[in-house]
Amino acid sequence: MEFTLGQVASILEGKVEGDENQKVSRLDKIQEGKPGGISFLANEKYTPFIYETEATAVIVSNDFSATKEFKTNLIRVEDAYNGFTKLLEAYAMMMKSSIVGVEEPSFIDPSSQIGDQAFRAAFSYIGKNCKIGESVKIHSHVHIGDRVQLGDHVIIHAGAKICADTIIGDNCEIHPGAVIGSDGFGFAPQGDGTYKAIPQIGNVILEDNVSVGANSTIDCATMGSTLIKKGVKIDNLVQIAHNVIIGENTVIASQTGISGSTVIGKNCIIAGQVGIIGHLNIADNTTIGAKTGIIKGIKKPGFTHFGYIGMDMKNFLKSYSIFKNLEGMEDRIKELEKKQ
Amino acid sequence: MEFTLGQVASILEGKVEGDENQKVSRLDKIQEGKPGGISFLANEKYTPFIYETEATAVIVSNDFSATKEFKTNLIRVEDAYNGFTKLLEAYAMMMKSSIVGVEEPSFIDPSSQIGDQAFRAAFSYIGKNCKIGESVKIHSHVHIGDRVQLGDHVIIHAGAKICADTIIGDNCEIHPGAVIGSDGFGFAPQGDGTYKAIPQIGNVILEDNVSVGANSTIDCATMGSTLIKKGVKIDNLVQIAHNVIIGENTVIASQTGISGSTVIGKNCIIAGQVGIIGHLNIADNTTIGAKTGIIKGIKKPGFTHFGYIGMDMKNFLKSYSIFKNLEGMEDRIKELEKKQ
Amino acid sequence: MEFTLGQVASILEGKVEGDENQKVSRLDKIQEGKPGGISFLANEKYTPFIYETEATAVIVSNDFSATKEFKTNLIRVEDAYNGFTKLLEAYAMMMKSSIVGVEEPSFIDPSSQIGDQAFRAAFSYIGKNCKIGESVKIHSHVHIGDRVQLGDHVIIHAGAKICADTIIGDNCEIHPGAVIGSDGFGFAPQGDGTYKAIPQIGNVILEDNVSVGANSTIDCATMGSTLIKKGVKIDNLVQIAHNVIIGENTVIASQTGISGSTVIGKNCIIAGQVGIIGHLNIADNTTIGAKTGIIKGIKKPGFTHFGYIGMDMKNFLKSYSIFKNLEGMEDRIKELEKKQ
Repeated sequence: MEFTLGQVASILEGKVEGDENQKVSRLDKIQEGKPGGISFLANEKYTPFIYETEATAVIVSNDFSATKEFKTNLIRVEDAYNGFTKLLEAYAMMMKSSIVGVEEPSFIDPSSQIGDQAFRAAFSYIGKNCKIGESVKIHSHVHIGDRVQLGDHVIIHAGAKICADTIIGDNCEIHPGAVIGSDGFGFAPQGDGTYKAIPQIGNVILEDNVSVGANSTIDCATMGSTLIKKGVKIDNLVQIAHNVIIGENTVIASQTGISGSTVIGKNCIIAGQVGIIGHLNIADNTTIGAKTGIIKGIKKPGFTHFGYIGMDMKNFLKSYSIFKNLEGMEDRIKELEKKQ
Repeated sequence: MEFTLGQVASILEGKVEGDENQKVSRLDKIQEGKPGGISFLANEKYTPFIYETEATAVIVSNDFSATKEFKTNLIRVEDAYNGFTKLLEAYAMMMKSSIVGVEEPSFIDPSSQIGDQAFRAAFSYIGKNCKIGESVKIHSHVHIGDRVQLGDHVIIHAGAKICADTIIGDNCEIHPGAVIGSDGFGFAPQGDGTYKAIPQIGNVILEDNVSVGANSTIDCATMGSTLIKKGVKIDNLVQIAHNVIIGENTVIASQTGISGSTVIGKNCIIAGQVGIIGHLNIADNTTIGAKTGIIKGIKKPGFTHFGYIGMDMKNFLKSYSIFKNLEGMEDRIKELEKKQ
Repeated sequence: MEFTLGQVASILEGKVEGDENQKVSRLDKIQEGKPGGISFLANEKYTPFIYETEATAVIVSNDFSATKEFKTNLIRVEDAYNGFTKLLEAYAMMMKSSIVGVEEPSFIDPSSQIGDQAFRAAFSYIGKNCKIGESVKIHSHVHIGDRVQLGDHVIIHAGAKICADTIIGDNCEIHPGAVIGSDGFGFAPQGDGTYKAIPQIGNVILEDNVSVGANSTIDCATMGSTLIKKGVKIDNLVQIAHNVIIGENTVIASQTGISGSTVIGKNCIIAGQVGIIGHLNIADNTTIGAKTGIIKGIKKPGFTHFGYIGMDMKNFLKSYSIFKNLEGMEDRIKELEKKQ
């Protein structure tokens, strides 16, 4: 889709400096701008590129003043970054488009209901007694088990598996290959060394505005619900075990694992490859650095934890800086021992 | 499905205290019990809830004696936890139900055989020359490659991929998105810095009663077989590389990775996010703590290993407790140096 | 497929010692050789097995001289390992076979083009405006989004998801369940503690000869491209975040995660469970040991890094060996303090 710079300026409530009839059809990075593209300049570090870019236009903030000649057209707005983001959203919305309809072959059990404005791709599968809201997009190879409930404006990307009895709120987005509601890992040891599966009869609940990354897994509860509260954002390849509860607006980066029955507070930031053992409580507003292992509950909200066994981050870094030269420390002890 | 408390008591060989005609249709946690639900009390910590629960009935052990009033009905059995587990199994069995039949469209090459009482969901795929046992449940979007053999009572959940030549024993359960028999990661370095794939012509064998978690991956052997022995339980997002052998009844938690050709003993417990390098032997009955790295074989059976580079767990924790205050230790050395 | 030993010798340009009319149909390990199989002996450690193996034939190097009797036939070649590899490749080629054609039901939007000699399995999905080269094999449950481009001789294994706008070069192999082009994990914090998704409008480019392992995930760029250069080999369950660039012929083992916008050099070797934070530059020819965390860029090419926070590997191992006995070190300090 093509827009004139005049049209773009009007969307952004900005002003064109240059030829407002030129057209753009693509968003480019300023350092990679090519004719037909529009870029933005919001970080001083990138200012030199404005004098070189081949992009047709660059969005700049009102206070930008050039120190050299440049070839591109400008669109001046109050805040260049916000302006660009607004444009990005409009563009993304058009790209995701509002696909509606049914591709065949697809499968839906007649006992299931689905709202208006839905998209069901070829090879999508919807089991029995499901209740699915409006404007839901179900892409190819999605499996939706029996008795699943989906809110409005949910997007389930290709190949995601939503197991039986899962409940998903409005505006959730499940990325490709994610598995929601698989059996929890619960086995009872038997006298002879073997294990017997403990039936996992609970479910998973995702409240509104939750995002789950590609190939992540969220197990159902043994009983009751594994609960992911409003606004939680989960990256790729994350593991959430049975009966975990995650508080509102907590963010979890890639390859982190949270063991069974742990309760995470709200507004936490958990970096990548973190491991948290089971049955812990983690306070609100906790930050956990990448690769940290958490083996004890965290009671005080608002702290940053880090380390192989997580501790106060500054403390860990101090100790680690000495660890790096433990040999030197040992030498000093030897020296002292000699001099006695 | 609804049962009267009298019926439940008769299944559990217990005795109702209260109204044996009341009905339950759901299993609840005692602290979340609602009318129509049945709970259990097996852990003293939860005793206070019996006086508050709204569950219709609670299963208790014979030795329970109330110290306050309560509203719920009791079912007394010898052991409340075992009783509840029995009920749970009966319930899970009914829920998984005994789906049988074929949903369309599904795909099976005419050269493949499948036993009685099978379920094949819509969009399930079975390649050439497969031999599939009785009462096998193959859910939607399952891929079964050529020459695969499945025993009796195998469940392959939605979207799992069973690659060519894999052999799976009786009563195995493969959870959604798991990949069994993908190519091992073997590349021969060439003179010019590039790599050439080494053909991976072996397969994967899962013996009886093996469980593989959601989105886990088990690679086929370069030659011969990657072998997962009887009763092994594997959690979600676990990686098992080519030519690994895992002994009977070993349990492996989420996000653990085991590198090529390593042989793990039987009855081991391997926690989450563990990494074990290739070509090692790990003794029977070994326990490995979460996030541990194992870079040397383990010869003595029955020990617990832990740490960034795994060692005796007590030793690691002692050293780590000193590590936490290395700064203090350095201060003591400085003090000694001053006083010389 | 069966070959006489005479035929095998002629493929390998070697010489049969024994009965050249005997037939083999299988490749066996020498220690597990059975009649009908052919093995090789390239490592002295395995020499004892040649006197015991039941394999019909063993490939040996010209300089092999037996010290005992044996039952098997020999095929002498210049280099036994190379000879066997040659055979392995021929065998693998036959097994993967050159499947061609379309199984039904499959889905391809009429606006998409696909070259000759293609295979499209049942339940494979190809969206709009795709350009797909020659001899491409698309297995069951593969999703190919809109505007995807695939080069020649690409293999997409069962259940892999190639999201919209991805570009894949010649001879790439994408293993089962891998996800290429999922949305990057980018969210803008809002004033009220919630997050808003930042549209991810870039794509992923895989150059020629790239391999991506089972259930690995590669996110699309926020803008521009996540770029995996020629010859890169990626193992299972690896996470590559948005806007990452990986240099030619770099190898990445299982469960490693690379955060957003990091640039990895060429010819690097990155072991399993490594984590690299975002916005770093890693020099060419860098080796990173298993489980290492990288939190700073690496400027000097050709070094080996290791440790919870990566450092020079020898340094880490020295410090760790002292860490193991920190208690002993503390005792020495106590001793010194007493004697003052």
